[in-house]
Order: sequence, then C-alpha cells, then structure tokens
Amino acid sequence: METDKEKTVGRLERIVDFCRLIDREKFIRRRTYLTDGQRFENDAEHAWHLAVMALLLRGYANEEVDLLKVVSIVLIHDLVEIYAGDTFAYDKEGLKTQKQREAEAADRLFPLLPDDLAAEMRGLWDEFEAEETPESRFAHTLDNFQPLMLQAATGGKAWKEGGRTLGEVLHRNRRTAEGSSSLWDFAMENFIAPQLETGNLKKDDTPEKGMKP
Amino acid sequence: METDKEKTVGRLERIVDFCRLIDREKFIRRRTYLTDGQRFENDAEHAWHLAVMALLLRGYANEEVDLLKVVSIVLIHDLVEIYAGDTFAYDKEGLKTQKQREAEAADRLFPLLPDDLAAEMRGLWDEFEAEETPESRFAHTLDNFQPLMLQAATGGKAWKEGGRTLGEVLHRNRRTAEGSSSLWDFAMENFIAPQLETGNLKKDDTPEKGMKP
Repeated sequence: METDKEKTVGRLERIVDFCRLIDREKFIRRRTYLTDGQRFENDAEHAWHLAVMALLLRGYANEEVDLLKVVSIVLIHDLVEIYAGDTFAYDKEGLKTQKQREAEAADRLFPLLPDDLAAEMRGLWDEFEAEETPESRFAHTLDNFQPLMLQAATGGKAWKEGGRTLGEVLHRNRRTAEGSSSLWDFAMENFIAPQLETGNLKKDDTPEKGMKP
Repeated sequence: METDKEKTVGRLERIVDFCRLIDREKFIRRRTYLTDGQRFENDAEHAWHLAVMALLLRGYANEEVDLLKVVSIVLIHDLVEIYAGDTFAYDKEGLKTQKQREAEAADRLFPLLPDDLAAEMRGLWDEFEAEETPESRFAHTLDNFQPLMLQAATGGKAWKEGGRTLGEVLHRNRRTAEGSSSLWDFAMENFIAPQLETGNLKKDDTPEKGMKP
C-alpha cells in the first residue's frame, strides 16, 4: 500500500517531469522577428511577453477580466505546440489541420499531469480556443497585438519578406477588437498604417469578403 | 489642455513603449543550459518557465500564497537586467555590486511606466528582493529550483564545465527551502545528489562556513 509520502512524491515527480518536458517550448520558433530584427521569437519568449503585457494592459480590456486567468491562459496557450508544432498564421494548408492537430496534442500532453492539474490546464486551453469568455477574448487580443508590435518595431520586416497584404493582416485580426477595441485601434494606427506608408505591407485592391475586423 | 482621449492615448503609448523595450529581456543570456544541452537559456524563457511552474507547483509552497502575486513577481523579477545585465550566480566580483547595479536599473526602468503601474511593478520587484513575504520566498525557491532541474536534465553539464562544488551549490541555495521544503528536498535527492555520483558536481572536503542550507 502506498504511504502518504509516496503518494506525495509520486505526484511531485509527475509535475516535475511535466515542467522538464515543457522546456521544449523554448525550441519552437515563431515567424515574428524580435526587436533586433535578427532572429525569430520562440513560443516561450512569446508567452512570457504576453503575460507581462497582460499585467500592464489589463485596464484596456473591453470587459472586466480575472487577471490570474488571463495570465494563466497566455502562459499555457501554446503548450500544445510541443507536440503539434507552430502553425504559421499565413500558412493556409497548415491552418486547415491546426485545430485537429492541436486537439490531439492536448489529449496527449495534459494527461501527463495529475488529474486535477490536467483538468485545470486543459480547461484553460479549451477556454482560450473557444474564445467565448472575457479572459479568452483579451488573451487572443494580446496574442495578436504583441506580434503586430514587433512587426512595427522591425519596420514590417517579416511582412515585407512574406509579401503580406493588408487584407491578410485584417483577416488574421478580424476578432482582435473583441478583447480590446483600444488596443486594436492603437495597433491599426501605430503598427499597421505606418507599414502601408512604407510599402512593407502591401495594399490590396480586392480584399476578400469579411476581412474588415 | 489635454482632452481625456489624449490622456488615454498618452498613457497607452507609454505602456506600449515599455512593452516594446522589455523585448530586450530575450537577449539576456543566463548560464543554464536548456534541456538539449546546446544553448544557454535567456531571461524571458526563464521567467516564463518559472511562471508556469508557479501554476503547477503552488501546492508545495510552505505557506499559503497569493498565486497572482507569485506569478507577477516571477514574470518581472529579472526586468532590471535589461539595464544591469545578468549576474552569474557564481561570479563573486559581480555579486558584490549586483544589489547596487540592479537598484539603479530599477530606478531607471520602472518610472518609464505611468505612475500607478510603475509603483506596482517596483513594489513587486522590491518584494522579491526583500524576500520577506510568502510569495517572494516561494518565487525565490522556484528561481533556484528551475535551474537545478535543468542542470540535472543535462547531466550537470554547466557544473562540470565550471568546476562547481557541492559547497558552492549549497551556499547558492542556502534559503531555497524557505519557500518550499518539499521542493528543496526533491532537488537535493533528484537533481543534486545524482551529480555528486557522476562527479560532475564535485564534493568539497572543507565547505566554507555557513554553507549548509
């Protein structure tokens, strides 16, 4: 029979194994340049940046939010990419299978934790994906606002390299205003519009339907 | 006279400028290898890892903690290094000036934010430094536990390269148990002791006074 001490140690070992595993998030490369314009951001750096920004920008959420929940969501929102990989926001083929690949990854990843923590973390991730609560809406806004900020800081370098158009960026951000209209307005004016001026973000004459945010 | 809108925009601009500035935390290299043993961790990755570990390991804190405060503290605890640089835990010369360099950095960094947020963030950092509250004690425990976990995952690679001794590691961790005796016991048994066996962490015959945790 397991003693209480063995149970406690078994639980702690499982959690620590998980903590060691998620170190891999530091090796998952995104497609956003850091402010030096020299290398791409990784998922762990991105999640850290979002979490600090949640602390600093919480006053701009459209709705009242539980800050601990917002921070928790942004900290863990990309963990599934340890198994599913990062899906580039403008990779049309990848986007088709993203939901399924990430759900399978979540089924594999979170049960590595003890049941109570597995349920809690899966719950946070499901909430983020469903985008139906004030916290998940604000988390999505931050998740979109931060790379726009980095794009602008590098003069739209990745947009220029990828030949991105305004229509694509607006489509990608069609729900960004839902979590914070102030942040979306700020991003349009300060991050997006200036790159239309420089030409690093291309204007498109025939934006697809439904691309207005 | 400033309109309300101008005030709001001015405030938001200051916060966003700060958010852009702290991107630099991603360029500050620590001396801990990631689990692949190939490259050193940076400050942003480290802070993200601590924050997720705070969510998962909160049940092991010696005292009851306000989780949002713990997470906030670990997220921002290294921001001063943007100006002060990382001080290696075994750099005796660097450690002598660390407190003063970091306090000067804090004086320069946090006032870039609007007053209320500046006071809040400075308060969290001061609390971490003072190590006198349950939250700051647990944050310090995590800040020490996480690199021990990575050391063990790489077979004590950085310890071997640096010729570290048990006495040095125990001195570095002399207060680690204050935030969580369970995590410190776990670290001794699973992270430190095995590297004494391999010899990658050296035993020292004459540990300096006061080195026992």
